[in-house]
Amino acid sequence: MEFDFIKKYFQRRHHGRNGVVLAVGDDCALLTPPAPGKLLVMTTDTITEGVHYFADTDPRAIGHKALAVSLSDIASMGAMPAWVMLSLNLEKLDEEWMDAFSDGFFNLIERFQMVLIGGNTSSASQNSITTQVTGFIDEGKALLRSGAQPGDQIYVTKGHLGDPALAVAALNKEIDIGEHLVECRKSLDYPSPRVPAGLNIRDIATSAIDVSDGLAADLGHILEESNVGATIHLENIPISPSAKALIASGQLTFETVMRYSLAGGDDYEICFTIPADKVDQLKEVCYECGYQHIGKIESTPGLRLRHEEEQFKVDKLGFEHF
Amino acid sequence: MEFDFIKKYFQRRHHGRNGVVLAVGDDCALLTPPAPGKLLVMTTDTITEGVHYFADTDPRAIGHKALAVSLSDIASMGAMPAWVMLSLNLEKLDEEWMDAFSDGFFNLIERFQMVLIGGNTSSASQNSITTQVTGFIDEGKALLRSGAQPGDQIYVTKGHLGDPALAVAALNKEIDIGEHLVECRKSLDYPSPRVPAGLNIRDIATSAIDVSDGLAADLGHILEESNVGATIHLENIPISPSAKALIASGQLTFETVMRYSLAGGDDYEICFTIPADKVDQLKEVCYECGYQHIGKIESTPGLRLRHEEEQFKVDKLGFEHF
Repeated sequence: MEFDFIKKYFQRRHHGRNGVVLAVGDDCALLTPPAPGKLLVMTTDTITEGVHYFADTDPRAIGHKALAVSLSDIASMGAMPAWVMLSLNLEKLDEEWMDAFSDGFFNLIERFQMVLIGGNTSSASQNSITTQVTGFIDEGKALLRSGAQPGDQIYVTKGHLGDPALAVAALNKEIDIGEHLVECRKSLDYPSPRVPAGLNIRDIATSAIDVSDGLAADLGHILEESNVGATIHLENIPISPSAKALIASGQLTFETVMRYSLAGGDDYEICFTIPADKVDQLKEVCYECGYQHIGKIESTPGLRLRHEEEQFKVDKLGFEHF
Repeated sequence: MEFDFIKKYFQRRHHGRNGVVLAVGDDCALLTPPAPGKLLVMTTDTITEGVHYFADTDPRAIGHKALAVSLSDIASMGAMPAWVMLSLNLEKLDEEWMDAFSDGFFNLIERFQMVLIGGNTSSASQNSITTQVTGFIDEGKALLRSGAQPGDQIYVTKGHLGDPALAVAALNKEIDIGEHLVECRKSLDYPSPRVPAGLNIRDIATSAIDVSDGLAADLGHILEESNVGATIHLENIPISPSAKALIASGQLTFETVMRYSLAGGDDYEICFTIPADKVDQLKEVCYECGYQHIGKIESTPGLRLRHEEEQFKVDKLGFEHF
């Protein structure tokens, strides 16, 4: 059964794209490596039902998100994705579910002209999906966490930071966001991997990371790996029209929204740093990808928050330190 | 917690081995591709508790087997393994379990001079482990399922075909194999990926596959992909001293043992074909790796079984067709 199943869903034609000599169908895939001067960029990520997505999630969204979370890592290195391997742990083989899952998965594959080169299906008592993505990048061009310098300006790609976490909290009945759940859940279910932005900033950024555990924690990795500190300005954090409306109507406080925006996770934006003398170039290379200036790298260790020129105490966000 | 956890167990030094520029520690790994003229060989496999291994399995064996199952695919292509990514879905982070798991996992990594380049940990209600392995092979040298020709001789690496399946059946109380369970379970828990054999036969074999679903089914894939048939001789199937003793004592019939040896699965031997005029070379290239001649490729489709020069009806093995 597994063999036919793989054939039906995943043995699509690949047009010899991206150096694929042999994809699904033998014990391994065979691939022509990129030309000398390029490096391979590899990552893997897992999403698990009940942990990373709700059981009632549209399988189309599950297929999308399973790939998006790995692509977000590729994007944050400034790399071009090429190949993906897909491992499905499934409670049962349900045709309707698989059709929708495949739609979401292959839509994203096509968007970035990737090839599915192999995978695996396994029976399980809990659904989970692991993707492994390989991309290419010119030697010496990868954006690491360790390159930020004092004086660099800090940016984040302009999504809706915090919306996914607001959706999770609302679905868990921890908060009530009324009709705004619809928009917030879109951000949760269909994160948009920032591959174009990563490619565009590659030549001028000094560091980058994808925001999967919350902006504060992920920027914290850059600060730690680069041995620097930072100040960020809360009024500059890109939040959604929904989040703004929730604050304006008094349904949520500014502090609550900031907590989800800085520490919520699941955003899959890219946080990156640009030297002061290259900030003007950012407008040119990134004219199609939205981005938002949020703060500045400093030599003093630690992350400092400011709100409209005032110091903002971290404990107002409901946790003691990042 | 996850970050420290990854650091503790998996951020081992890699000595810049195998072109590894950056391993665990950033969003992605960075790798120098092999020289022109070589292809990348990629596979992924998952083992799940209660599906692929018993809950009481020694975590050292789980670490070994999680990697061995992917290495077996690499071996069957005739490739040299280089890099591995590890995705752990775990019910809890238990230090004792992780220590033992890591021992089994890294022992096998060291045996084949590989590097762990990245991975992922995720909380789950059921333990499962996915490994993704990348290897190298010279262009045009990969052993596919599709290359077998009438007249080729069929071989299998000389492990103990059927012992893992006998262990599973005994542990499930379907059969009683007494004290032989100890030896059979070793084959189940510590499969030895036939990487050296794969490398040795690479220049003379016409096809190969790893035996994970049972010899009959996996040889069947070669027959199907190569548009050929085969006859195999049951008295030549390499079975263990335990299996022979079980037949000799009358605890199991010959037919029962053959059923597990041909259709049991989990063997992780390599089944391969050699042209008649290269059989003499096999002794030279494979003098250290054991192998056993089991039959011959024929132009007539289908798999035929013989036992001591007599036709052997497949239905004696308890299933109608392969």
